[in-house]
Amino acid sequence: MSSSNRQPQAIILAAGEGTRMRSSLPKVLHKVGHLPLIAHVMKAASAAGLSHPRLVLGHGRDEVEQDLQSRGFVFDVAEQKERLGTGHAVMMVRDAGQLPDGPVMVLLGDAPLIKPELISGALDRLDEGADVVVVGFEAADPTGYGRLIVSGDSLEAIVEEKEATAEQRETTLCNSGLMAFSAGVLGPLLGEISNDNAKGEFYLTDAIAIAREAGKKVAYTLAEEADLAGVNNRADLAAVEAEFQSRKRRELMLGGVTMLAPDTVTLAHDTQIAPDVTLEPNIVFGSGVTIEGGATIHAFCHLEGAHVKGGAAIGPFARLRPGADIGEAAKVGNFSEVKNADVAAGAKINHLSYIGDASIGEKANIGAGTITCNYDGVSKHKTTVGKNAFIGSNSSLVAPVSVEDGGYVGSGSVITKDVPSGDLAIGRGRQVNLPGRAPKLTKK
Amino acid sequence: MSSSNRQPQAIILAAGEGTRMRSSLPKVLHKVGHLPLIAHVMKAASAAGLSHPRLVLGHGRDEVEQDLQSRGFVFDVAEQKERLGTGHAVMMVRDAGQLPDGPVMVLLGDAPLIKPELISGALDRLDEGADVVVVGFEAADPTGYGRLIVSGDSLEAIVEEKEATAEQRETTLCNSGLMAFSAGVLGPLLGEISNDNAKGEFYLTDAIAIAREAGKKVAYTLAEEADLAGVNNRADLAAVEAEFQSRKRRELMLGGVTMLAPDTVTLAHDTQIAPDVTLEPNIVFGSGVTIEGGATIHAFCHLEGAHVKGGAAIGPFARLRPGADIGEAAKVGNFSEVKNADVAAGAKINHLSYIGDASIGEKANIGAGTITCNYDGVSKHKTTVGKNAFIGSNSSLVAPVSVEDGGYVGSGSVITKDVPSGDLAIGRGRQVNLPGRAPKLTKK
Amino acid sequence: MSSSNRQPQAIILAAGEGTRMRSSLPKVLHKVGHLPLIAHVMKAASAAGLSHPRLVLGHGRDEVEQDLQSRGFVFDVAEQKERLGTGHAVMMVRDAGQLPDGPVMVLLGDAPLIKPELISGALDRLDEGADVVVVGFEAADPTGYGRLIVSGDSLEAIVEEKEATAEQRETTLCNSGLMAFSAGVLGPLLGEISNDNAKGEFYLTDAIAIAREAGKKVAYTLAEEADLAGVNNRADLAAVEAEFQSRKRRELMLGGVTMLAPDTVTLAHDTQIAPDVTLEPNIVFGSGVTIEGGATIHAFCHLEGAHVKGGAAIGPFARLRPGADIGEAAKVGNFSEVKNADVAAGAKINHLSYIGDASIGEKANIGAGTITCNYDGVSKHKTTVGKNAFIGSNSSLVAPVSVEDGGYVGSGSVITKDVPSGDLAIGRGRQVNLPGRAPKLTKK
Repeated sequence: MSSSNRQPQAIILAAGEGTRMRSSLPKVLHKVGHLPLIAHVMKAASAAGLSHPRLVLGHGRDEVEQDLQSRGFVFDVAEQKERLGTGHAVMMVRDAGQLPDGPVMVLLGDAPLIKPELISGALDRLDEGADVVVVGFEAADPTGYGRLIVSGDSLEAIVEEKEATAEQRETTLCNSGLMAFSAGVLGPLLGEISNDNAKGEFYLTDAIAIAREAGKKVAYTLAEEADLAGVNNRADLAAVEAEFQSRKRRELMLGGVTMLAPDTVTLAHDTQIAPDVTLEPNIVFGSGVTIEGGATIHAFCHLEGAHVKGGAAIGPFARLRPGADIGEAAKVGNFSEVKNADVAAGAKINHLSYIGDASIGEKANIGAGTITCNYDGVSKHKTTVGKNAFIGSNSSLVAPVSVEDGGYVGSGSVITKDVPSGDLAIGRGRQVNLPGRAPKLTKK
Repeated sequence: MSSSNRQPQAIILAAGEGTRMRSSLPKVLHKVGHLPLIAHVMKAASAAGLSHPRLVLGHGRDEVEQDLQSRGFVFDVAEQKERLGTGHAVMMVRDAGQLPDGPVMVLLGDAPLIKPELISGALDRLDEGADVVVVGFEAADPTGYGRLIVSGDSLEAIVEEKEATAEQRETTLCNSGLMAFSAGVLGPLLGEISNDNAKGEFYLTDAIAIAREAGKKVAYTLAEEADLAGVNNRADLAAVEAEFQSRKRRELMLGGVTMLAPDTVTLAHDTQIAPDVTLEPNIVFGSGVTIEGGATIHAFCHLEGAHVKGGAAIGPFARLRPGADIGEAAKVGNFSEVKNADVAAGAKINHLSYIGDASIGEKANIGAGTITCNYDGVSKHKTTVGKNAFIGSNSSLVAPVSVEDGGYVGSGSVITKDVPSGDLAIGRGRQVNLPGRAPKLTKK
Repeated sequence: MSSSNRQPQAIILAAGEGTRMRSSLPKVLHKVGHLPLIAHVMKAASAAGLSHPRLVLGHGRDEVEQDLQSRGFVFDVAEQKERLGTGHAVMMVRDAGQLPDGPVMVLLGDAPLIKPELISGALDRLDEGADVVVVGFEAADPTGYGRLIVSGDSLEAIVEEKEATAEQRETTLCNSGLMAFSAGVLGPLLGEISNDNAKGEFYLTDAIAIAREAGKKVAYTLAEEADLAGVNNRADLAAVEAEFQSRKRRELMLGGVTMLAPDTVTLAHDTQIAPDVTLEPNIVFGSGVTIEGGATIHAFCHLEGAHVKGGAAIGPFARLRPGADIGEAAKVGNFSEVKNADVAAGAKINHLSYIGDASIGEKANIGAGTITCNYDGVSKHKTTVGKNAFIGSNSSLVAPVSVEDGGYVGSGSVITKDVPSGDLAIGRGRQVNLPGRAPKLTKK
């Protein structure tokens, strides 16, 4: 893409109320792969070289703005208070004085599967001389879509279904709603779009007829229908999520990741997994996870904000929460949770443990049922376990506390004071056997 | 439906042995969505206005009767000891003196996906003047089915496949086995059905030819093949379960429930989930669960007989058992189980806890690894934790016991006596460090 | 199969580098159903009566050899150091002096879904007089495959796609790469295969033209495309795994196993499940599991090397590891792990427990949060719990230790000494309430 001489920018339409979502959350903030719908569109636009998009927002404007800002996106917002059609939405950008000087691509904030190549393809047509480019697609079922009437590589018209002739209805080449305009073209066209129609709305597609009448060159490109899927209800959302997951899984598998049952692995948009990692069935990734080569994630794991080094084994039934950093060949086993903790190489946390706000040394052994008591009702405190330390099963480490290198904690102990290196620490009651008392207890 | 002047009733055929199920359980008691097959049919019949059904039972009669009674269904039973055809099954109802006076609909107890509209549709045809109505369907693969030979809206004949001409075999309009009879029609028809055929059985479909010969008006309706699917083996059962799940998931999603991976969520027939609830992947619902709006069920949860209020967060890896009532914005986190317990608003049970037979107060904090010791080998006892109480990690609360409002239990304590409001309770051994003893333990 | 007079043997080609797997593991050691790809092929060959196969190995030869030996397979290895075509691979067997005297079937080590019947079918053709038999299949998409040009039951030629005429390309009957040769035929044919072609390689398919020229009888058989699927990347591996799972699930369901959501159950090649077992959703089987009739495996379980007797209930959220032997009507409940332990009839381990290296007696009750402290940093030790013993919740059993029949352990105890039959053992701190101290702790 020769972005130097075109400086294209995007207008992203995202003011829809989304009533069919039946949600108090603005539609474009619903997530796919743990990222809002509109953020997917903004990432694709950015990857295609479109900088600083103009968003047309309506319902839930502030919420959308804040969410996207918190993710580091830079953009302008034009508000569309009344919903009077796609043309009206773009007019809001103009009225806010934000209409780009260069080429403009109009995108839809609720269609997150768009690929950067689709955008580049439309911009390329502008480079080749077109004034306006409409992105079309071959619809499996064209019912309800406007049809593209084309001649060679020229777009003659967009005909809405209810105005189409029987012959026109047979075409399956449909309008996606995505359009590109070369520099200086959009503004004048907008000025001529009227609301003199049944619904009294302003349709951006009217720009095609106006442009052709003015002698402009109107072209089209073809995209895959799957890349254009929009979200109008939660079933759509699930379908788009499924397609996103399917693509991301395939990409990982072709990159060398083994998945025993890919359909049962849920990935996030930013999940990073190296070759020769094995993923067993039923794994859920939240955001911010990186897995290095040679690690194994056993079945039934939930990971978020975690880093797992090579040769480590996680699960089954493990939860890694933000700040979990699992070292080489370390193990986090069943019914164990690690949060905000460094677990050094070769350390083992095999069963029923909670390790939070902690540092676990190399080859330390954390017995079954060990709990770091990190919260005292007011603040969180840190637990440090040194290299080769041994924590007996069912122990409580009451933070702030430290078991130094090679320290040994007896099973069932409550540890409230530091354990120096090489010490054996015991903190538990002494056993008393009361002869013959059991039958009285069990046969009341 | 004008039920006043027709008072229709159902006969449900459910005497099949189900040998291909390879099960000791009667076929119609196998479950879909946690409800027996036949109970689905009875629910649909009731929703369509058919009261007090007659069930034809054979194999496992008592077991079926008791199961349905325990679910509150009201019905009569006719027993079919020998299996001599569908006509014979209906004759058992007659011989038991249970043949309804009004219109009758014959349904199949092993086809649970039937919709009330299908039944109403057939009854409507009776209202419009038909004497007998057969429910037909367009079969994707008609092999093995009887074909409906029709003329306009009249049913001319049902031709069994082996007796069909080559031309008749090409029709894909097939017999579902469901039939409706107007008042007073079924009895006389039954009287004329004979077993003068190869297998020596009585076929209810013979009623069609008899009725036409007697000048009766025989009509048909069309149903979706998917709604008629019967269960003959466990693969069928799984297929019907899958269809049931798919319908119920879609209904919930269109109602405003977000499901990240709908295919991994298993619902029960009575699962109730409000709009703006989010379900992460891999969730299993047993019977009797209600989730209020704004709650989040994280991945890997198992819920049964539980109520979750708005804003609450469950899981990942949580189990709610019968009697779990989780308050607003309360949390039940990983590897935690709650049974027969009220958890008030804002309370937190975040990790590795068992809370059974308990009441947890508002904003109480239950530390990791807390166990309510509710069973003493003979009886179950109650644990009460007051408002704003703090239970330190890895504590044992030996019921019956109470920690009053604002009480504080030190980590690793075994609490056997009540803790008054504002008290700090500690019940654990005192830590002793034995210098230099660790190396002796780890290098035997 | 009349194996007496033919003694057929297999040559299995498995020298491919598998670069598209992006793996350090040799391709044929990647697993399906927990068994290496090549081991599936060897099992099918053995089931069809082919003894003592010759494997052609290249990349990772030693690793493959050792893996298969450890699984008890008996075979010879010929190494193919350079990859110069399928003909060259078979020449390596000849050069190692391992060419079988009797009939020979050439199989592919990376296509694990092959059925014994497919092999028998080809050998039957040899019995019927053919000298060479090629296994063909109807390809859904023939692109890239060699086409079989046939006349009646005779194979006239295999035409590679790039050399095919337009007409030949329209045939969808394709070459699978599997071939059978009658006794004494393969050796002479091999001697005539040349590498006088574009790539300078030796193609086994050239044997067809050579055989026909020499007046040999060349036939073909037809196999299902699904049975021939090969693995070239991890997406292929996942697809083959999915097909394997689907077949195994269906086989179990038709045998009387109920699966609520079969697609969420992952089986191993050797999983054995009796009729009237119920499997809830989301279960993962590792190798070596046997479940007896009437047991229920609830959702979210992970089982490996375990034996579950009739009427037992496992899970939800349970992990059975190798050596877990669960008795009749025993229970292992949520967040519980059992390893190398006999759990006798009627015993209950319902919540949050780790039972390792142990023997649990009949009807013993293991309270929530019980941990067998089986590891002391050096060795593993055994815990014995007798019949009708009661272990209070959150107890630590420090092995080696024994609680005898009817012994009772108070909640929260650390048990380090044996508990005689009928004794009540308590080993915990005494509770102290410090009035008014709680507010100071929570409002620092």
